[in-house]
Amino acid sequence: MTNHSDILLRDLAPDGILRLTMNDERRRNALSEAMLSELGAAFADAGADPAVRVIVLAANGPAFCAGHDLKEMTAGRQAPDRGRAYFEYVMAQCSGVMQAIVNCPKPVIAEVTGVATAAGCQLVASCDLALASDTARFSTPGVHIGLFCSTPMVALSRNVASKHAMEMLLTGDMISATRAAEIGLVNDAVPEDALRDAVAEMAGKVAAKSTMTLATGKRAFYAQREKPLAEAYDYASQVMVDNMLAHDAEEGIGAFIEKRAAQWQDR
Amino acid sequence: MTNHSDILLRDLAPDGILRLTMNDERRRNALSEAMLSELGAAFADAGADPAVRVIVLAANGPAFCAGHDLKEMTAGRQAPDRGRAYFEYVMAQCSGVMQAIVNCPKPVIAEVTGVATAAGCQLVASCDLALASDTARFSTPGVHIGLFCSTPMVALSRNVASKHAMEMLLTGDMISATRAAEIGLVNDAVPEDALRDAVAEMAGKVAAKSTMTLATGKRAFYAQREKPLAEAYDYASQVMVDNMLAHDAEEGIGAFIEKRAAQWQDR
Amino acid sequence: MTNHSDILLRDLAPDGILRLTMNDERRRNALSEAMLSELGAAFADAGADPAVRVIVLAANGPAFCAGHDLKEMTAGRQAPDRGRAYFEYVMAQCSGVMQAIVNCPKPVIAEVTGVATAAGCQLVASCDLALASDTARFSTPGVHIGLFCSTPMVALSRNVASKHAMEMLLTGDMISATRAAEIGLVNDAVPEDALRDAVAEMAGKVAAKSTMTLATGKRAFYAQREKPLAEAYDYASQVMVDNMLAHDAEEGIGAFIEKRAAQWQDR
Repeated sequence: MTNHSDILLRDLAPDGILRLTMNDERRRNALSEAMLSELGAAFADAGADPAVRVIVLAANGPAFCAGHDLKEMTAGRQAPDRGRAYFEYVMAQCSGVMQAIVNCPKPVIAEVTGVATAAGCQLVASCDLALASDTARFSTPGVHIGLFCSTPMVALSRNVASKHAMEMLLTGDMISATRAAEIGLVNDAVPEDALRDAVAEMAGKVAAKSTMTLATGKRAFYAQREKPLAEAYDYASQVMVDNMLAHDAEEGIGAFIEKRAAQWQDR
Repeated sequence: MTNHSDILLRDLAPDGILRLTMNDERRRNALSEAMLSELGAAFADAGADPAVRVIVLAANGPAFCAGHDLKEMTAGRQAPDRGRAYFEYVMAQCSGVMQAIVNCPKPVIAEVTGVATAAGCQLVASCDLALASDTARFSTPGVHIGLFCSTPMVALSRNVASKHAMEMLLTGDMISATRAAEIGLVNDAVPEDALRDAVAEMAGKVAAKSTMTLATGKRAFYAQREKPLAEAYDYASQVMVDNMLAHDAEEGIGAFIEKRAAQWQDR
Repeated sequence: MTNHSDILLRDLAPDGILRLTMNDERRRNALSEAMLSELGAAFADAGADPAVRVIVLAANGPAFCAGHDLKEMTAGRQAPDRGRAYFEYVMAQCSGVMQAIVNCPKPVIAEVTGVATAAGCQLVASCDLALASDTARFSTPGVHIGLFCSTPMVALSRNVASKHAMEMLLTGDMISATRAAEIGLVNDAVPEDALRDAVAEMAGKVAAKSTMTLATGKRAFYAQREKPLAEAYDYASQVMVDNMLAHDAEEGIGAFIEKRAAQWQDR
């Protein structure tokens, strides 16, 4: 069994910024069973750990993440059912990790260097925020190998316009970080040597906020998005009322009116 | 009781363009109970007034609108229930005003000068169209004071891509008018001294149309958007049939074929 | 009865690229009953024809497509029911063609030259991909003639941001191809004399893929988009599993691992 410290590095800074670094360079940080397992555990742990305020997902090596591990998938075909049960297991595991990012109460920022392809591109799309090196590139190339990027498109099509998603999905073409920023797949593309500072600045801003408030808002964002307008307003209004009654809003509003720094209960 | 002519100016021009100007500069046009009440009444009146063809929502002072009135909210905490009933009242009132803009049969154009923050940004997002001065700025800064902009995000997330919305919501950062135009929060950013003319031109174009047709189309826009594709087509097809059978479509199509100006029944 | 070879040319190249050319220049390629009938038949035939791998929708003349045939519509008013039954028939026919594009298992690329207005703009929005000449222009001008572009907006509002759609719908203004590319209505705008090559290149890329994979992915794209996130993942995961078990994925993945060209079963 692979030790998780090898393929997914965890580094928690004193300011509450947890840096998760995919570190399986040899396999281009493929979403192997081991990597999915490590990611799932890391997001679960981070969600529950009061010391973690914001999560940065980064990667070592020339590939941010190459998507599923095709050798593992191919090996799975040897089973009597030609792999059906195995594929169902892996897809459920992978979709579970993507939704763990969305459902994690801590904001997640992708720091994209290198190439993010297939489920690797989905990983970027699933994060709340993403900054990319201007040398990073993105694609959903499954169509090249007969396996349409159907699960990646769930995340992709919730980030970018329909024709932009379809162009990536139907052609399998690689797009640049600049283009990814234009279409909304990442928040910005910055020079490679400025990326880490840009992510640190963004993460620092988010980490300075009340963790309760961030969790409340993130959960509400994804929940309200799936509701019709009137229901979304009913729901979000109730979220606001509960948020108003929580300590950190009372403290934050008081501090704002009194022009002093807020003291969040959660830190 | 505040006289509405003080905090929300109403000016109806002969061409049917109603200009609503938020005029509570001292409170940065905050959505106080009084302002929400005035806005609600103004949109209800305008919706019912056949002389009103299009509505422009503008503001006096350096702030377009600063969102909720935090002093009123804080005062509300003194109640035995710590403000719950009051907050529920205000949130319902505010969400009601935002939906009154969406449900108003007359198109609403935001003319944004200065800073539009929190529910003030929501106001811009809730309008059908928006033009901004290139000096205008936008943010959803609730996260700074422990109160996530959960209701503003209902409108914001229906205007801009997911990562763009999340960046505003999680960082609370201010964005420029140019950036707001890039991400779709406003239709365009123009030099400050050209804004009023640009809005007048846009409003004039819309005001020249059949009011019945505008009301039909606006209602259908927001209704079909919430339906699956096949249902949206069934619904919109029926809207088209009814529209075809109305006087103004018969007149408009006839005028087009005969190359003459249409005479709308409604004016 | 109009011979379909007159108003909709069909040209199937050996590489599986079917070129459909609207060729009713005199009527600005209006979506007359005859044209809708030809388009419906062409997409049905192409969907069922294993020789067709990708479809390009192009047009002859200065108008890509001018939308509904207003003379036919006006003639329909002579019926005792003032045209209601006829309008219902035409709207159902037109919405049927638009959904036939979406539901067609073969990817459809619009090659837009000239002016695409009303249901002609809807046609572009309904295609999976679209490339435009930089001299092409787009509008939903029904509002000028009292007939709001309610069915076109079903497709338009699923392509572009809300305020961009509303600007086109409420003003009826024409937008340039460059602007259409910026807002996501088309994938790109290229110089007029480079358009055909650009479309050929894009179509060629798509045609080289497994037809089974394209059909699987296209169907899943539009289906998952209408589901909440968790349901979308359950659905797409199952699509991936079935796709993995199909011949072309096994072949494609094998070819990728063995660094050889894949041999799709379907060609």
